[in-house]
Amino acid sequence: MTEEEKARYFELLRFRSVGVDKTKQRDCVECATWLKTAFEDIGFSSSLRLPDGVSGPPCLYAERIVGPDAVTVLFYGHYDVQPPDPLGEWKSDPFEPVERDGRVYCRGAQDDKGQLFAFFCGMKRFLAASPDADINIKVLLEGQEESGGDIIWRVAEGMAKKLRADVLLVSDTNAVADLRPTIIAGLRGVCHFTVSLKGAKCDLHSGIYGGIAPNAAGAMARLLASLHNDDGSIAVDGFSNGIVPPSAREIELAEASSSGEAAIEADIGCRPCGGERGRSVVERNSFMPTIEVNGIHSGYGGPGSKTVIPCEALAKISMRLVPGQSPRGAFEAVCRHLESRVPEGLTLKIYEATGFSEGFRLPLDTPLFRLATEVLESMDSRGPAFLWEGASIPCVSMLSRVSGASPLLVGWGQPEDAIHSPNESFSIRQFDLASMWAERILGALAPEKKGINR
Amino acid sequence: MTEEEKARYFELLRFRSVGVDKTKQRDCVECATWLKTAFEDIGFSSSLRLPDGVSGPPCLYAERIVGPDAVTVLFYGHYDVQPPDPLGEWKSDPFEPVERDGRVYCRGAQDDKGQLFAFFCGMKRFLAASPDADINIKVLLEGQEESGGDIIWRVAEGMAKKLRADVLLVSDTNAVADLRPTIIAGLRGVCHFTVSLKGAKCDLHSGIYGGIAPNAAGAMARLLASLHNDDGSIAVDGFSNGIVPPSAREIELAEASSSGEAAIEADIGCRPCGGERGRSVVERNSFMPTIEVNGIHSGYGGPGSKTVIPCEALAKISMRLVPGQSPRGAFEAVCRHLESRVPEGLTLKIYEATGFSEGFRLPLDTPLFRLATEVLESMDSRGPAFLWEGASIPCVSMLSRVSGASPLLVGWGQPEDAIHSPNESFSIRQFDLASMWAERILGALAPEKKGINR
Repeated sequence: MTEEEKARYFELLRFRSVGVDKTKQRDCVECATWLKTAFEDIGFSSSLRLPDGVSGPPCLYAERIVGPDAVTVLFYGHYDVQPPDPLGEWKSDPFEPVERDGRVYCRGAQDDKGQLFAFFCGMKRFLAASPDADINIKVLLEGQEESGGDIIWRVAEGMAKKLRADVLLVSDTNAVADLRPTIIAGLRGVCHFTVSLKGAKCDLHSGIYGGIAPNAAGAMARLLASLHNDDGSIAVDGFSNGIVPPSAREIELAEASSSGEAAIEADIGCRPCGGERGRSVVERNSFMPTIEVNGIHSGYGGPGSKTVIPCEALAKISMRLVPGQSPRGAFEAVCRHLESRVPEGLTLKIYEATGFSEGFRLPLDTPLFRLATEVLESMDSRGPAFLWEGASIPCVSMLSRVSGASPLLVGWGQPEDAIHSPNESFSIRQFDLASMWAERILGALAPEKKGINR
Repeated sequence: MTEEEKARYFELLRFRSVGVDKTKQRDCVECATWLKTAFEDIGFSSSLRLPDGVSGPPCLYAERIVGPDAVTVLFYGHYDVQPPDPLGEWKSDPFEPVERDGRVYCRGAQDDKGQLFAFFCGMKRFLAASPDADINIKVLLEGQEESGGDIIWRVAEGMAKKLRADVLLVSDTNAVADLRPTIIAGLRGVCHFTVSLKGAKCDLHSGIYGGIAPNAAGAMARLLASLHNDDGSIAVDGFSNGIVPPSAREIELAEASSSGEAAIEADIGCRPCGGERGRSVVERNSFMPTIEVNGIHSGYGGPGSKTVIPCEALAKISMRLVPGQSPRGAFEAVCRHLESRVPEGLTLKIYEATGFSEGFRLPLDTPLFRLATEVLESMDSRGPAFLWEGASIPCVSMLSRVSGASPLLVGWGQPEDAIHSPNESFSIRQFDLASMWAERILGALAPEKKGINR
């Protein structure tokens, strides 16, 4: 990372581009505009895009077109970041980048501003060295990845022809332990939603009304508890319909890339014992769906006691989905499950349902994967690991479908980056690997022909 | 209520005497000092009392002693109030009394500042009319009733001899429907505590760690759900040990005083379907114990979604206890229940355990209850109803034991007062009945002999 790159990287990080936060929409627009200028400065034509009549974080589309017969890459990334709370746990301002011991701390330092800006820097270096390279480069960035909004869906559908490409490049994922280069061979899908329960007209005295009034907090606890069996498996009828199990080769490669339980425990600070008992960490994380409670809030939470029966309760739920599961079908199965269990006296509402992206796994033996493997071997003699990520990039399958491009996901995240958590960070070393990858994969693709993905 | 009484009542209500809130300790002391002066102004000697070396809301002890052979009453009340949150739901400032349609709205308007100040006004009127009345009046007020603190326990134990009395008068309870005068023949005990679960070192990404990291929010939901069976009965082994069932006559009188399900539904705004299926509202509220979740908080609760696996969760729990249950034994049963169910990877902590008061039921056929019945018949030709309250006044059994006095609990609360909730209120009519009761019961007791309770 040059000093100039660092200064620009810090500028990008300072935008408070929390896409989900209605009060940060202006920050999102300013962030997208900054990126637009950055791409124009290296010769792209560029525009911000929103569906007609929609407000929200805009998409940025940029392109550098050399001609109809050149190989075409489409690069996807997102400039929105997770909300910074809990604010009290940050050691420095979440939107003021600080460098300590070779790492840059800031919300978005890695996910995805850091990875996308590193890719941008590599692309800039490649184009500076090979200004006439025979490659079409298209870029589509969005501002709703963290919140599952549908703006990019609608923008992409509306410009499908413009997005046609051979390779969909994404840099928003992790490398395995010790930064061994990693190709993501699969991602889980995701769907998230909010659940509320309402009962009495106000919180009630737990003595006067105890044994009489339905308790929304207790009822929410029972509803959420009913989603899983005692062994951690999912208890929702119909949720797992259609799941395509992984092949023996996929399981073998995934297990080979795993950092192991001890490393995960050191990373997260407790035993990695989530999910279904009797299955390996890799199975549970890469090949099984999940239903997670992202939050639950009801009644009193301050010091000491307040003896009330809460009249309402709120829960945030996300699901990770695997190939074969229909996002809509899985969501509807959970809705049916919850609706059929609403206790007397309480009213259930399910809303803010977003995401609805499918999980996917890519075939391993393709010319594109072989080319990527060569590039990654040139960066690290160990060559790439293959990883089936537990995380989701909701629009990768959509963009792949719309553009006709084959996804190639190589990212440089590490667990210690603490993305989505307080004190998110990205190391200079990771940044440099990410920009080197961008420079070399573009260099390797330029001599190829249109249709390398076929 | 005279204009002067109202002005003084409003002064008392303005103190922000939230006993549980460490930042409101000064308000509590100022409130207690105001009450001390009020009692001194009507001829009592009076002092604020705290156990040695303890800080917190002080007790106020006041006495008017005429001689060793006179009948002695001990009046108990509390000047602390519940926290005012959720603040957004108040129609006017929670600590600025406002009169609308014959009701005074303010935190503490009823519970217990309103009831205790009405009693004070009746007492003042009685003493003004009968300055030489042959009755010893002792008053002990506390500032930790709502938070279950132990200051009054330690103060009372330390002045047991001074507190000797025949009758323990308390005005902190409800009358049945339509303000028919009501004698509380029983109260439930109470115990409350906080439960926390901790797992990973920080909130984690629900994709990257989904299926791996234990989810503190989901685990807390499962823990809380395990406290009850599907039929709403309590599932905690040993919790119900020793319960003494009510007699047929107690059930009959309690059912006769019940306002009925339809009235309760109109009052609380939803079906009164809490507690154990297959038992009547009266049974569930008066004669059965409860375990209620007063609050649960974990993870994200803002707009949209934040796809985290929460690393910690907090729950507030209160239990209502019936005669025969040991508060300590019931608490320990719940601790054992929770401790034996802590999921792998998470750490349970149980703390802030307070209350530990027993439930009680009083014998119905005593000279004191006959006298009180006559007084209440003079106020309302229907005579008193007998009620076994679901609520608790944690120190009534303790004060009865320490003072040797028989409890006589006659209060004037109504469901629409919304105590513990936003927009708490007390009507002028209730206030006037409460002060009339004080005036008349003191007038009826004064001619009696010491030992009326034997």
